[in-house]
Amino acid sequence: MTENGLPALGSTDRTRVRRFPENASDDRDVLNAILDAGLMAFVAVTDDAGQPYILPVGYARDGDRILFHGSTGSRLFRSLAAGAPTCLTVTLLDGLVLARSAFESSMNYRSVMVLGSCTVLDGDDKATALRVISDFLLPGRWADIRQPSKKEDAATLVLALSLEEASVKISAGDPSDADEDVDRPIWAGHVPIREVFGEPIPDEAGAAFPVPDYVASWTR
Amino acid sequence: MTENGLPALGSTDRTRVRRFPENASDDRDVLNAILDAGLMAFVAVTDDAGQPYILPVGYARDGDRILFHGSTGSRLFRSLAAGAPTCLTVTLLDGLVLARSAFESSMNYRSVMVLGSCTVLDGDDKATALRVISDFLLPGRWADIRQPSKKEDAATLVLALSLEEASVKISAGDPSDADEDVDRPIWAGHVPIREVFGEPIPDEAGAAFPVPDYVASWTR
Repeated sequence: MTENGLPALGSTDRTRVRRFPENASDDRDVLNAILDAGLMAFVAVTDDAGQPYILPVGYARDGDRILFHGSTGSRLFRSLAAGAPTCLTVTLLDGLVLARSAFESSMNYRSVMVLGSCTVLDGDDKATALRVISDFLLPGRWADIRQPSKKEDAATLVLALSLEEASVKISAGDPSDADEDVDRPIWAGHVPIREVFGEPIPDEAGAAFPVPDYVASWTR
Repeated sequence: MTENGLPALGSTDRTRVRRFPENASDDRDVLNAILDAGLMAFVAVTDDAGQPYILPVGYARDGDRILFHGSTGSRLFRSLAAGAPTCLTVTLLDGLVLARSAFESSMNYRSVMVLGSCTVLDGDDKATALRVISDFLLPGRWADIRQPSKKEDAATLVLALSLEEASVKISAGDPSDADEDVDRPIWAGHVPIREVFGEPIPDEAGAAFPVPDYVASWTR
């Protein structure tokens, strides 16, 4: 697992790679913090012909595993449910890095990569997982909305992926120009990027009600 | 290619799937606009053991192909260079969708999926591609920075992936609640998400120079 990361996004010397679970608990805290800061993960699965696919999914971290869901109507999700090898990443783009050379120009990011195979959750575990995902992506919303019907539940696959084989790469801060480039008479540094929420926009029937406090309090 | 998309992010009826090149030119414009609005792509490649990996990369669109680069030191990039089947996605998260049921709660997004195999660029094509990538990710920067040395060039793989087999999925706007849910007396709608740039932050030597106009003008 030495090359599952971000070779094209940052030069090696400013990138920290951390693997789990060999490392110390503070590294696990770093991994958890990245997972808890994201909203979307990308999941890879390969079909019988050797063609890989990437599925963007909403997700939540639940202790030492990632939970996400998909449709039973999806061939690729059914393949994940059957235990196909997968790779899941949560990668947060934190900025553009303006070095003094083309080669060191890159991006700042925090990235978690997880390898493994998914487990299908059923019954109470499945119901709990759907709530955990909702509580993570849409905190406070669960109590207000209609719970899944039997038909909806039957159309939904809920998968768990252990964080046992996970690694972290982080690239942050200043460019790492070669010594011979630093005297180049130009501005160099980085431009931060972050996600922000806009104002909540109601649909037609929703406009009759106030924006819930739990929504108004969401920040990125 | 019916399931290469976003089954977990939106319900089917509010998601438009478009495939190329069968469709009309306005659909191609939609695809191009999504690619031109992103900064980071995710690329999947599967190793000999059947384990898929996801590589986050900076990229640029160059007409009817995607350009990106990686390290010759990366086994996975070398596999892409050798023509391994790949999937590339640029997926932009546009918002959270607060429906009146758990089942319809989802996300708004614009997503391009590309299947195919990469071509390695060399010589003048490689040099031009590196500039195209820089001009897309860091517009205006190329003229100010040191160009790649022979050693740096030798350490860099530049790959092109045709957009011939590409598809688009878009989920936008209001939730699509079932009729029987719309009377539920709660706020419903969506919360937009967007990326913003922060103020440019110079490194120690860079602080002696003004922020270039081309950087100051960047917006997301």
